[in-house]
Amino acid sequence: MSENPTAAVLVIGNEILSGRTQDTNSNTIARFLGPFGITLKEIRVVGDFADEIIAALNTLRARYCYVFTTGGIGPTHDDITADAVAAAFGVGIDYHPEALKLLAARFADPADFNAMRRRMARIPDGASLIRNTVSAAPGFQIDNVFVLAGVPSIMRAMLDEVAPRLSRGRPVISVTVAAAVAEGAIAAGLAAIQTRFPDVAIGSYPVYRADGYGVQLVARGFDPALVETVAGELTSLLAAAGGKPERLSP
Amino acid sequence: MSENPTAAVLVIGNEILSGRTQDTNSNTIARFLGPFGITLKEIRVVGDFADEIIAALNTLRARYCYVFTTGGIGPTHDDITADAVAAAFGVGIDYHPEALKLLAARFADPADFNAMRRRMARIPDGASLIRNTVSAAPGFQIDNVFVLAGVPSIMRAMLDEVAPRLSRGRPVISVTVAAAVAEGAIAAGLAAIQTRFPDVAIGSYPVYRADGYGVQLVARGFDPALVETVAGELTSLLAAAGGKPERLSP
Repeated sequence: MSENPTAAVLVIGNEILSGRTQDTNSNTIARFLGPFGITLKEIRVVGDFADEIIAALNTLRARYCYVFTTGGIGPTHDDITADAVAAAFGVGIDYHPEALKLLAARFADPADFNAMRRRMARIPDGASLIRNTVSAAPGFQIDNVFVLAGVPSIMRAMLDEVAPRLSRGRPVISVTVAAAVAEGAIAAGLAAIQTRFPDVAIGSYPVYRADGYGVQLVARGFDPALVETVAGELTSLLAAAGGKPERLSP
Repeated sequence: MSENPTAAVLVIGNEILSGRTQDTNSNTIARFLGPFGITLKEIRVVGDFADEIIAALNTLRARYCYVFTTGGIGPTHDDITADAVAAAFGVGIDYHPEALKLLAARFADPADFNAMRRRMARIPDGASLIRNTVSAAPGFQIDNVFVLAGVPSIMRAMLDEVAPRLSRGRPVISVTVAAAVAEGAIAAGLAAIQTRFPDVAIGSYPVYRADGYGVQLVARGFDPALVETVAGELTSLLAAAGGKPERLSP
């Protein structure tokens, strides 16, 4: 999977770190990238502090093919992402004519398009807009960085706009097999299968539920036939341990 | 809030980065730390790769008072956290007598306590155990790093064991006021309040729901009276904008 484009997510917002809000955007982006054959390598969450956003962004954009940021592009004083991104790239930031137009169109009474709302049209120099079909205020792309909204429904809409701009890799095929077997009972067999099939990544995830324990085994790789072969081995392993293996989708 | 102990979370697991699993452990730890007056400053997620775990851990443990890792301490081949932590600290790793005893007690038939299950008793030199009241396999503490399980129910139980070991800071008081008002309509007033009360952090979070839009304003600070004063200002601001402010708990 090392030849695929790589990506990182940078979530920006005190509300995630205080525990007030459960981040779901990272998971949405992770699932979005899978079919493109883009490998998500890292997720970071930092607060609404310019120096921390700048440091994290500069590390991640140098290390990975793509960086997706979410959060901090609204109209209020705590929305500092656009300024931090401009600072990270060492470029200026100014009102973007097209962004102003998109935003102005949203307000029947021009008086409602106040100074703070105009802030949302401030875009780093050289960036291209990412359309927001939900609430007008655009995201933007600068180099390999996509700056997206934090509100989940808006972020998802922006991802659709981003899709045509992404280089594609080879999608990963994934098969999951589950059974009510203790992970520790099959661990040695699992390691042996992994050794025999180094091109398929095998993950083992124990499950603890009110109705008992079990394990989910995941085979992931590029070659569908090879992944199926490994899934067959995993199924046999679970059956040999007394389980009734079930294939889960996906 | 800068005098409080700081913390980071390091989530370890391919299943988070593939999007297969939604991480909830970070949010649990964030909410757990609040009452202790420990400030969560950063969350990172990396995959099951030793070099990435080691690099992230060494950065985070140098930067923050505490690091909490979750994931990768089970019996299977993809559980490499304990070895990676030992490598990050430059110490050895071996079977820990007490951990072996705790684990052995779980198996009526000694034959079930196989080599892979014994792996879960491998603990870096100098670490102290963190008891696991759910499934026996312990976590461990080494210096300022707490190594916890990835299964949420087990991780929560381990947090209870960790609690007495933590230095406490001044807890943050938080009040949330909400109304069906557009964020952009109050943004200027909000910025003015923030300027007048620099010791209270004001966050603004737009809400988009099927039944309409609105905003949640959060005031956070150490001084309960001051936070209440700011909450009063926020309530007046929302009312002046035509909203019917509601106080949310917490």
